[in-house]
Amino acid sequence: MPDTTLTIDELTQLVTRIFLNAGVTPAQAGPVAQVIVAGERDGCKSHGVYRIEGCLRTLAAGKVQGQAQPVLQQDEGAIIRVDAGGGFSPGAFDLGAPLLARRAQDLGIAALVINNCTHFSALWPEIEALCDHGVAALAMCPSYSTVAPSGGNAPLLGTNPFAFGWPRPDKLPYVFDFATSVAARGEIELHRRAGTPLPEGWAIDRDGQPTTDPQEALDGAMLPFGGHKGSAISTMIELLGGAMIGDLTSRETLDYLGTTDYLPHHGELLIALSPERFSAGRPGDPFARAETLFKAISGQGARLPSQRRFAAREVSQRDGITLSGEEMARLTRLLDDPRV
Amino acid sequence: MPDTTLTIDELTQLVTRIFLNAGVTPAQAGPVAQVIVAGERDGCKSHGVYRIEGCLRTLAAGKVQGQAQPVLQQDEGAIIRVDAGGGFSPGAFDLGAPLLARRAQDLGIAALVINNCTHFSALWPEIEALCDHGVAALAMCPSYSTVAPSGGNAPLLGTNPFAFGWPRPDKLPYVFDFATSVAARGEIELHRRAGTPLPEGWAIDRDGQPTTDPQEALDGAMLPFGGHKGSAISTMIELLGGAMIGDLTSRETLDYLGTTDYLPHHGELLIALSPERFSAGRPGDPFARAETLFKAISGQGARLPSQRRFAAREVSQRDGITLSGEEMARLTRLLDDPRV
Repeated sequence: MPDTTLTIDELTQLVTRIFLNAGVTPAQAGPVAQVIVAGERDGCKSHGVYRIEGCLRTLAAGKVQGQAQPVLQQDEGAIIRVDAGGGFSPGAFDLGAPLLARRAQDLGIAALVINNCTHFSALWPEIEALCDHGVAALAMCPSYSTVAPSGGNAPLLGTNPFAFGWPRPDKLPYVFDFATSVAARGEIELHRRAGTPLPEGWAIDRDGQPTTDPQEALDGAMLPFGGHKGSAISTMIELLGGAMIGDLTSRETLDYLGTTDYLPHHGELLIALSPERFSAGRPGDPFARAETLFKAISGQGARLPSQRRFAAREVSQRDGITLSGEEMARLTRLLDDPRV
Repeated sequence: MPDTTLTIDELTQLVTRIFLNAGVTPAQAGPVAQVIVAGERDGCKSHGVYRIEGCLRTLAAGKVQGQAQPVLQQDEGAIIRVDAGGGFSPGAFDLGAPLLARRAQDLGIAALVINNCTHFSALWPEIEALCDHGVAALAMCPSYSTVAPSGGNAPLLGTNPFAFGWPRPDKLPYVFDFATSVAARGEIELHRRAGTPLPEGWAIDRDGQPTTDPQEALDGAMLPFGGHKGSAISTMIELLGGAMIGDLTSRETLDYLGTTDYLPHHGELLIALSPERFSAGRPGDPFARAETLFKAISGQGARLPSQRRFAAREVSQRDGITLSGEEMARLTRLLDDPRV
C-alpha cells in the first residue's frame, strides 16, 4: 500500500471508528481518538496511532472498561474528582477539565483527580487543554514500576511523567512533559533491536550494577533522570498521584496487571493555577512578564520545550498527516477486526 | 577560643539577640534565628550561622527592611498572601503557614504567596512546618540569575530551589529540597579556593562553552540539573514563583541588587495539599500506603532524602550544637557590633 495522507479530522474519524467497532462507547472513543491523533499530528509517533493496538489489547484482556461512564464528583472545595470507572482516561479528563479551570479561576488554585482509569496518553494534550482555558497547569501520574530509586537496585518507581504548562495569549502555550526516568522504556527496546549499547547512566542490571546492555537493562531497572533529584520527584509523583488520591502506585499497577503488555491502570493528579488570581494587586502583567522570560531563553539560542512538536503540528494542519502503507493497512484491518 | 557547645535554645537566643541588636524587630528576628539554627542543628553549615553575616550585610545596605511588619491578606478563595514589606521571609512564612494548612484542610488544596521578601533560608524548614500540620507541601522560589537554560549560553535562571514534603505520622516527614542547578554556587567557590577542577557538566564559561575551571564558571554560568528537564523545572519556578505571583524573577532580582553580595529579594510560592481530602471516599489509608513505598525504597538500600539531616538533628538535640572557636568569636563580636 502506498503512503496515505489524511486530514486531522479524517484520521480522528478513522481512529474513533476503530474504537467504536471494538465496543467502546462514543463518550470514551472520541476523546481517546483525539489524543492519539494529537500525538500523530505533532510527530510524537510513540503516542500516535502506534498506541491503538495497546489500547485494543488491554480492552480484549478486560483490563480497561470500554463501556464505562466517567462519573463527576465535586463539592464546594478545590478538588474536582472524576471516577473513570475503569475506562480510558481521556473521556474522564474531558469531563473534569472545564470545571477544574473554572474552579481555579474562582479560588485561585484547584485540583482535578482522575481515579480508576487506564492511562496511555501523553500529559501534554491535557496541559494544553487547560492552558486554553487561561490557567497554568501541572499534571503527574505513576506508571508501572520499571525504575529503581537513586541508590537502589530494583524496579519500584514508574517512568512517572511530570508536565507543566503556562498559557500564552495568542500563542501556543509553554509546555513541558517528560518522563522522570532518564530514558523511556521504548528507547531501550530500540537499542535492543538495533544491537547497540545504551548510553551510560540509563539503567542497572538485575544485580543493581550499571549496565549498557539493553537486555540486561530490560531485565534490571531504568534509572531516574538527574540522580537523586529526579528520583525524589518521581517518589513525589507516587505519593501525590498514587497514595494521596487513593489510587495505585507504580508497583501496585504492575502487580495488578502482572505484565507491561497492557496499558497501566491508576489515577492522575492535575493542578490548575489562575495567573490573574495569583497576580491580583501586584505590579506587572504576569503574561507579559512571562513573555520577557521566554524571549530571553530563545534569545540565547535555547529552545523552549514543545517547539519541535508545534512545528510538526503546523505541517500537519497545513498538509495533513501522512501514514505509511503499513500503518494504513493496519488501521484498515483494525477497523474490521479489532483483535490484535 | 576553644570549641563551644550550646543547646539549640541557647544558640537560638544568641542568634535572635544578634538580629535584635542589629535593629530587626522581634517578629522578624525570632523566625530568622530559628531557620538559621535549624540549618546549624541539622548539619547544613551552608544555611547555618554562616548566613548571619549575609543577612546583616543586606540589612546594612538597606536591601532588607528589618523594621517591616508582614501583612496578611486573604479572601474566601484558596490563596493566602503575606506581603513581607521588604523584610526577611521567615516571619512572613510563620504568619501565613497555619492559615495555609487550615485552608488546605478546608478546600483540599491551597497556596501561600509570600511577596516582597528577602529570602535566604532553605525551603525545608517551611516544608517541615507545614507537614507538622498534617498536609503535604510544595515550595519554590527564584534566586539570582546565575544559571543558563539548557542549550543556552548565559545566566538567566536562578538556582531556583524546589522542595516537597509528605507528613509521616509519628515520624519526621519525607522531605526533599534541592537547587535546580547541578551544583550550588558555593560549591564552585570551594573548588576555586581549593584550586581543583569542577566535575564536567556543572558550568559553562563566558562564551557558553563547557568548562571545568571554577573561575571561568563563576564568570560564565552554572547549568541546570538533569539537562533540559531540570531547565524546564527551573523555568516553571520563574513563572509560578516569579511572574505569576507578581514578584521578581531571578534576572530581575539580580538587576535590582546589582550584585550577589546581598541576599536575594523576591517572592515565594507554597502549595499545601490535604491527603485526607484527596483520599476521601477512596480505598486505603494514604499515610499507610506511603509508608509501604518508603519501606520499599529503604529496603533496597536507597536513602530517603533528608536522612543525613535528621541524623545530625538527633545528635544536636541530644548533645547540643558545637561551634568552633572562630565561629563563636564571630558571633560574640556580631552581638556587640553588627557591622560586617
